[in-house]
Amino acid sequence: MMFAQIGCPTKAETHNREPDVSRILYELCGAEAERCFSPFAWRARMALLHKGLEFERRPTPFTSIARIAPEAGKTVPILVDGDRTICDSWAIACHLEDAYPDRPSLFGGDGGHAAAKLIESWANAAISSRIVQMIVKDIHDILAPEDQAYFRASREPRLGKTLEAAQEGREDRLADLATALLPMHLMLKSQPFIGGAAPMHTDYLLFGTLQWARVASPFSLIDPESPIGQWFERCLDLYDGHARAVKAA
Amino acid sequence: MMFAQIGCPTKAETHNREPDVSRILYELCGAEAERCFSPFAWRARMALLHKGLEFERRPTPFTSIARIAPEAGKTVPILVDGDRTICDSWAIACHLEDAYPDRPSLFGGDGGHAAAKLIESWANAAISSRIVQMIVKDIHDILAPEDQAYFRASREPRLGKTLEAAQEGREDRLADLATALLPMHLMLKSQPFIGGAAPMHTDYLLFGTLQWARVASPFSLIDPESPIGQWFERCLDLYDGHARAVKAA
Repeated sequence: MMFAQIGCPTKAETHNREPDVSRILYELCGAEAERCFSPFAWRARMALLHKGLEFERRPTPFTSIARIAPEAGKTVPILVDGDRTICDSWAIACHLEDAYPDRPSLFGGDGGHAAAKLIESWANAAISSRIVQMIVKDIHDILAPEDQAYFRASREPRLGKTLEAAQEGREDRLADLATALLPMHLMLKSQPFIGGAAPMHTDYLLFGTLQWARVASPFSLIDPESPIGQWFERCLDLYDGHARAVKAA
Repeated sequence: MMFAQIGCPTKAETHNREPDVSRILYELCGAEAERCFSPFAWRARMALLHKGLEFERRPTPFTSIARIAPEAGKTVPILVDGDRTICDSWAIACHLEDAYPDRPSLFGGDGGHAAAKLIESWANAAISSRIVQMIVKDIHDILAPEDQAYFRASREPRLGKTLEAAQEGREDRLADLATALLPMHLMLKSQPFIGGAAPMHTDYLLFGTLQWARVASPFSLIDPESPIGQWFERCLDLYDGHARAVKAA
């Protein structure tokens, strides 16, 4: 498998360059190209790994996303798979499941595919929404200067406060995060992965959210000895420790 | 399909009576036999309906549960299916899926079965845990006097307060419940049921929780015009409006 990191695409590169492999995954990166942190891009990357597909990664900073494929959308991940360009991590997972039915299933059937939509919404609305308030200034700090300016200008109105104010007092909110994660804690009494005995895309949905925090922030959200911490470690071990190879912030 | 309501079993009835059909579902009831309110029993009942299986219902008040099948457990639902006695709504759903593979699937494959475990934990830990604090005195009020005494004595230590105090100020907690239900709200933008185009056991998990509140309490938790309210109405319509036939409290 190849995971080339060839820096951030310029407009000319994106449109004129012949890809090395037929699949290209555009991901969000910080000032360092290897610091890819988007939870959505991690979901897509884990889905590609699960399917055992080769792909080339193109780390892309915030202010370069619009140049990738203006027709596809303004957010990463974007997957170019042959002549298909797919924007949005959910659409990417659906595409991979449909296009590569003979590879390991991401959803484990129609019921799993449908249920994953609720689990995605849970990971976003119950977990990511809390975590962003605990790491948003740290995310800012790993970005290149021009991306920092964009990030602050776009995020502070959404948060209704400064990045610094959002993150302030985060230690006091760890218990609230643990309560929000209680469903996962309870589930792990029955099975080692959301996918059952082995991981499925449902695992990557929550994993992407926690890997986002691991890559972007030094703040510890989860006790690594806890059941959820142990599940996260199992996910970091997958595919020859692929996700663990990105150093924690 | 037969849904006989034959009142609450006495010890003699439970052990000596020949069942009319081979399947008997023991459910929790209030002072009125038809006021079956246990969220777990509703999950099991909907699962039986989903499978299209005949069963006889035996509404059982709290203080009679121990007499049903002491070897099976001290909580309802309990399903007696031929020579099998299964306690716990999750175990009942798994049994039905295994024992009746040619009937409509409850989980839609292995991925759905595994994902349902997280959704069950979410319904319990994120939703039921909030709702109980809003309806616990109303539950008490629908019980027969001997069950009221048991209920108060067992629940108040768990709640750390009186039933009345738990329920007080519940109007102020509706926004918190709506936030907890946000994953469902978001999911419904993509599909009409957690099961996708049609309901699966994942729907019955949350439905049981909301039907518990509908049957036990007059307090309105969900706007019937909201997306979640509309989904709940669709669930009430299932199987010839089976769950709607039980009057709201």
